[in-house]
Amino acid sequence: MNSISGLVKNGDLVQLIDNQGNTFIVVMYSGGELHTHRGILAHDKLIGANWGSRVYTHTGYPFLIISPSLGDILLRTRRNTQIMYPKDIGFILVNMGIMPGKIVIEAGTGSGAFTTALAYMVGNDGQVITYESRPEMQEIARNNLERLGLSHRVTFKLKDIHNGFDEEGVDALFLDVPNPEDFMFQVRQALAPGKPFGSLVPTTNQVSRLIRTLQQENFGFIEVCETFLRYYKPVPDRLRPTDRMVGHTGFLIFARPLLPGTEISSSLNEENFPEGESTGTIRGGEE
Amino acid sequence: MNSISGLVKNGDLVQLIDNQGNTFIVVMYSGGELHTHRGILAHDKLIGANWGSRVYTHTGYPFLIISPSLGDILLRTRRNTQIMYPKDIGFILVNMGIMPGKIVIEAGTGSGAFTTALAYMVGNDGQVITYESRPEMQEIARNNLERLGLSHRVTFKLKDIHNGFDEEGVDALFLDVPNPEDFMFQVRQALAPGKPFGSLVPTTNQVSRLIRTLQQENFGFIEVCETFLRYYKPVPDRLRPTDRMVGHTGFLIFARPLLPGTEISSSLNEENFPEGESTGTIRGGEE
Amino acid sequence: MNSISGLVKNGDLVQLIDNQGNTFIVVMYSGGELHTHRGILAHDKLIGANWGSRVYTHTGYPFLIISPSLGDILLRTRRNTQIMYPKDIGFILVNMGIMPGKIVIEAGTGSGAFTTALAYMVGNDGQVITYESRPEMQEIARNNLERLGLSHRVTFKLKDIHNGFDEEGVDALFLDVPNPEDFMFQVRQALAPGKPFGSLVPTTNQVSRLIRTLQQENFGFIEVCETFLRYYKPVPDRLRPTDRMVGHTGFLIFARPLLPGTEISSSLNEENFPEGESTGTIRGGEE
Amino acid sequence: MNSISGLVKNGDLVQLIDNQGNTFIVVMYSGGELHTHRGILAHDKLIGANWGSRVYTHTGYPFLIISPSLGDILLRTRRNTQIMYPKDIGFILVNMGIMPGKIVIEAGTGSGAFTTALAYMVGNDGQVITYESRPEMQEIARNNLERLGLSHRVTFKLKDIHNGFDEEGVDALFLDVPNPEDFMFQVRQALAPGKPFGSLVPTTNQVSRLIRTLQQENFGFIEVCETFLRYYKPVPDRLRPTDRMVGHTGFLIFARPLLPGTEISSSLNEENFPEGESTGTIRGGEE
Repeated sequence: MNSISGLVKNGDLVQLIDNQGNTFIVVMYSGGELHTHRGILAHDKLIGANWGSRVYTHTGYPFLIISPSLGDILLRTRRNTQIMYPKDIGFILVNMGIMPGKIVIEAGTGSGAFTTALAYMVGNDGQVITYESRPEMQEIARNNLERLGLSHRVTFKLKDIHNGFDEEGVDALFLDVPNPEDFMFQVRQALAPGKPFGSLVPTTNQVSRLIRTLQQENFGFIEVCETFLRYYKPVPDRLRPTDRMVGHTGFLIFARPLLPGTEISSSLNEENFPEGESTGTIRGGEE
Repeated sequence: MNSISGLVKNGDLVQLIDNQGNTFIVVMYSGGELHTHRGILAHDKLIGANWGSRVYTHTGYPFLIISPSLGDILLRTRRNTQIMYPKDIGFILVNMGIMPGKIVIEAGTGSGAFTTALAYMVGNDGQVITYESRPEMQEIARNNLERLGLSHRVTFKLKDIHNGFDEEGVDALFLDVPNPEDFMFQVRQALAPGKPFGSLVPTTNQVSRLIRTLQQENFGFIEVCETFLRYYKPVPDRLRPTDRMVGHTGFLIFARPLLPGTEISSSLNEENFPEGESTGTIRGGEE
Repeated sequence: MNSISGLVKNGDLVQLIDNQGNTFIVVMYSGGELHTHRGILAHDKLIGANWGSRVYTHTGYPFLIISPSLGDILLRTRRNTQIMYPKDIGFILVNMGIMPGKIVIEAGTGSGAFTTALAYMVGNDGQVITYESRPEMQEIARNNLERLGLSHRVTFKLKDIHNGFDEEGVDALFLDVPNPEDFMFQVRQALAPGKPFGSLVPTTNQVSRLIRTLQQENFGFIEVCETFLRYYKPVPDRLRPTDRMVGHTGFLIFARPLLPGTEISSSLNEENFPEGESTGTIRGGEE
Repeated sequence: MNSISGLVKNGDLVQLIDNQGNTFIVVMYSGGELHTHRGILAHDKLIGANWGSRVYTHTGYPFLIISPSLGDILLRTRRNTQIMYPKDIGFILVNMGIMPGKIVIEAGTGSGAFTTALAYMVGNDGQVITYESRPEMQEIARNNLERLGLSHRVTFKLKDIHNGFDEEGVDALFLDVPNPEDFMFQVRQALAPGKPFGSLVPTTNQVSRLIRTLQQENFGFIEVCETFLRYYKPVPDRLRPTDRMVGHTGFLIFARPLLPGTEISSSLNEENFPEGESTGTIRGGEE
C-alpha cells in the first residue's frame, strides 16, 4: 500500500481557519512565524502536524489546518481592485489550454489574482509574463505572488501595452483591461496564430466593440459566454439553493488569430456538446 | 525581443479543422500519418508548419491547424458514457487544488474525460490514480489517454472501490459514481485530512444522501453548487444570448475529511465573495 | 381622438413616492387623509391631480404620484412571513388560467400577497376563497385586502384544510403550505378534474414528496419548474447585469387531477415551446 | 357545501388532448363540430361531460378534456412570427398593472399572442387597442382572437404608429417592435404620465438604444430585466432539471413617463425584494 503524505511539510502551503472563519494562507518554512489576531503560530510547530488537525497559538487559540485550493487562495488575495472569480478562472483555464509547460501573457496584472492562477497551472516548466502600467498595482501583485512562492514562474513587466508585447509566439494571451479592442494588433504580434486569445469585460457594449474588432482583424472561433455559479444550503432534508447569488461578474470572449486566407466559419462550443454517444475524433498517428 | 514559437513541433498536440467543423486532435510524431475522411496528412508535412495556417491532404483537401484547449479535447473525447462538461471541470480543478505536482485519485474512470483533465493539470511531476471496475471502460479510457501522450501520468486500476483504495494521504479525491455516499469510509482512508474531496451527481436525491453521509462521517466545509454556461451569438450589432442552453449537467459537492474533535461550522464560498476592497489574508512567514 | 383619463379619480389606487424611494400605496376617497413621515396629504388634493405629477404635504414635502402595478403592490404588502415573488406569481397566473370570472381556492392565506394577486385578476365577476388556520395571519391578510378595496372579491375561511374544503368544482386551486402532499385527497374533492392545481415549495425534498403523491393520486400533466429574474443596470453605454440577484424563491409544481381511466403520458411545456412557425391548433367550431 | 361546476358548459373554452399530445383548444357551442385528424367530435357530446374525462370521436378515438390555461393557449396560438413566451408574459402582466377594467395599447399586434393575454386579463370591462401595419398579420391575429371569443375586448387598428396613437391617457402601453426608441414621443402622447410603459427586445444593442431615449425623454423608474424558466423532470426519486432549457427570449424594459420637473432617481425592483419582515407601506385613508 502506497503512503503518500498526511503531514504538513516544509514548503507546503497551508490554510489556517478559526471557528469564526478567519483564514490565513501561509507557506511553511523552518523558523517562520505567523502572527494572528489571537497569538503567534511557529511554523516549526505546524511542520509535521497532521493535515486536518487542530493547532494552537501561544495563547491557546485553536486553528484548523487544511490544504487551500486555488479557489481558496483567490478568494483571499490581497487586492484593491475587483478581481476575477474562481468560476470564471476555471473555465478560462480549461478553454485557453493553460497547462503545465505553457508560456502565457496576461495584461493587466491588477492585484495578481489571475496571475496566481496562471502561475500555479503552468508549473515550474511554464512561464507567465504579466504586463501592468501602474507601479503600485504591480507591487501588490508581486507581493501576493512572492508570498505564495510563485514569483519565479512570473515575469512582471511595467509597460503600457499600447507599445506592444516583448514576446512572440506565446501559447495563450489574456487581456483583463477595459478596452481590449484597442490591442488586437499587439495581440497578433505576440500570440502564435491559431492559439487562444481571451478577455473578460463587464458590459455588453465592450463585448460588441471587441467582437467587431476581432472580426475585422481576422480572428476566428470567436466565442462569447458567461458563467453562473449557484450554491445550495447543504441540509440533506431541506435541500435548496441559497436565497441570493452572484448575478454577474463579466462576459468571457475567446478567439484565435488566423493567418490571412484561412477564414473559417465553423464554431463548436459546449452549447453543442453532444450527449451520450460520441464520434471519437481524437486520433493517434497509428491510424 | 523573445521569440518563443510559432511553428508546430514534433510532439505537439494539434487540432485540425475543416470548413464543415470536422475536427481531428493528434499528437505529431515524425513518420506519423493522419487518415482523414478526405485524404491523408503526413505528420512530417505538419511539423514545421505555422500554427493557424492551412495544410492540405494528399487529395488537396484543406485543414486549418490550431492548438487545442483542454475544452476542445474534452468535447471530442471518444466515449460511450455521459462525460463531464468543461464548465464543471474547470470549476472542480480550481476548487480542489488540482495543480502541477499533485497526486489525485479518481473513480470511476469512465471514458477518461476527467482523467484527461487531471492528467494535463498535474503535469509530469504529479500523478493520477484512476479506479474502474469495468474492463471495457478502462480500455477506452486508456486508449484516449495514450493517444494524447498522457498515459505515463496515469495509473489505471481495475478494482471495485468497495474494497478501498490502495493509497493513503493523497492530495485530492474525486468520485464520479452514482452512489458516492457508499464510499466515505474508503475516501477517508485514502485522502489526507483537510484535503479536498469532490463528487458530481445528477439528481437532488443523490445530493441529499451524500450530504447526510458527509455530515455523519465528520467531513467539514461541505459545499454544494451547480455551474451554468450561457453562450452569446457573436454579432456585434445584434448581441444576444443563444436561444437554447444546457440546463443541467450535475450538482457538484465538495468537502474535506476532518480529524475527530475538529468540527467546524464556518464555510466560505464564492457566494460570499467580497467585492472590491479585500482584507488581505494571504500571509508570508515574515510577518 | 379618444381621451380616456390622465387625472387621478376618486376610488383610484395611487402610489406616492418621495426622492428617497419611500412609498405609500393608497386608495383615494373624498375626505381621506394620508399621514406620511413628512406631513399630511389630503386625498381631495390628490383627486384631480395629473398622474405623474408632484404633490406636496402640508409641510411642503414633495411626492410623485404614479400608478402602482400588481408587482409594486406585492413588493410593499404588509407581512410577517416570506411572501411569494412577482416573478413566480406572474407565471402561476398564466399557467393556472387565473382570469376574470374564475373561482379560485388558495391555502394558506399568509399575509395575503398571493390572495391580492388572485383578487385583482379574477375581477368583480370572480371569487377567491382563501383558507388559513392562524387567526392573526388571517387578520393581517384581511386588512391588506381591505386597504386595497379588494375584500369583496375574497372569502376568508379560518379552517384547517385537513378537514377539507367547503367547495366543489372550482376552477383552480393553489397550496402555499409546507406539506402540500398531505392534502391531495382534499384537493381532488374541491377542484374540478382537468383543472389546474399548483403549489410552491422551497426545498427539493418537498418537491419529491409532492410529485410522488400526485402520481399515486392520478394527477396528470405534472410540471416542476423554477423561475429566475435578472436585472440590468439601465446605463446605455455600460449595460450590464446587476452584481447580485435572487438565487432562489421556490419550486413551482403544477398538475391536474384526472378521472380514473384517463391516465395520460404526454406533457407539453414551455421548454418545448416551438419557435417560429406553428401548427395552429386553436380551432373554432366552424371547422 | 357549495357546488360550483364540474361539467363542461356551452361557451366554455376546452382543451382536448390525445395520447400523443395532439391538442385542440375550442370554444364550445351548441351545434358545433370539431374535425380532428382522427374523426369528428360534436360539441353537444362535450357539453355536459365531466372536466377531466375521456370523450371519443365518431371513429372511437379518445381525447381527454381539460381546461386550458393562458399558457396552454399561448403555446398553441396560430402564428407565423416569433411570439412572446408565457414566462415573459406573466411577469409583464404583473409588472404593468394589467388587470380587469384596464385600457391598454399594444403595438405591433403580430400573431396576437400577447393581445390574447391582454384581452383575457382586462376582462369585459377593460379594452385592448392593438396597432399593426401589416394587414395579413392583423388578419391572423383577428382570427385567433375570434376563435377564443375575445374579439369584443379588442380594437384592431391597421396603422403605422409613426403617425401616433389615437388614444390619450391609457393605463398601460406595450411595444413589441424592433425599434421602440423611435416612438417615445408617440408613447408620451398616449400614455398617462406615471403609468407603465413596457417593451421586449432581443438584443443588448436595442436595450441600450431604448434606455438612452427613455432617459432623454424624461421617463423614470427604468427597469431592464430578463426572465428564465427551468423545468425539472418530475421523477420523485431522481429529481433533476431537464438537460436543456430556453437560454434567451428577450430583454424586458419597463419605465414610466414623468411630467417635466419630476425627475426622480429612486428605483425599487424585485432585486431589492425585502425578505421576511416588511415595513408595511400599503395604507388606507383611515390613517
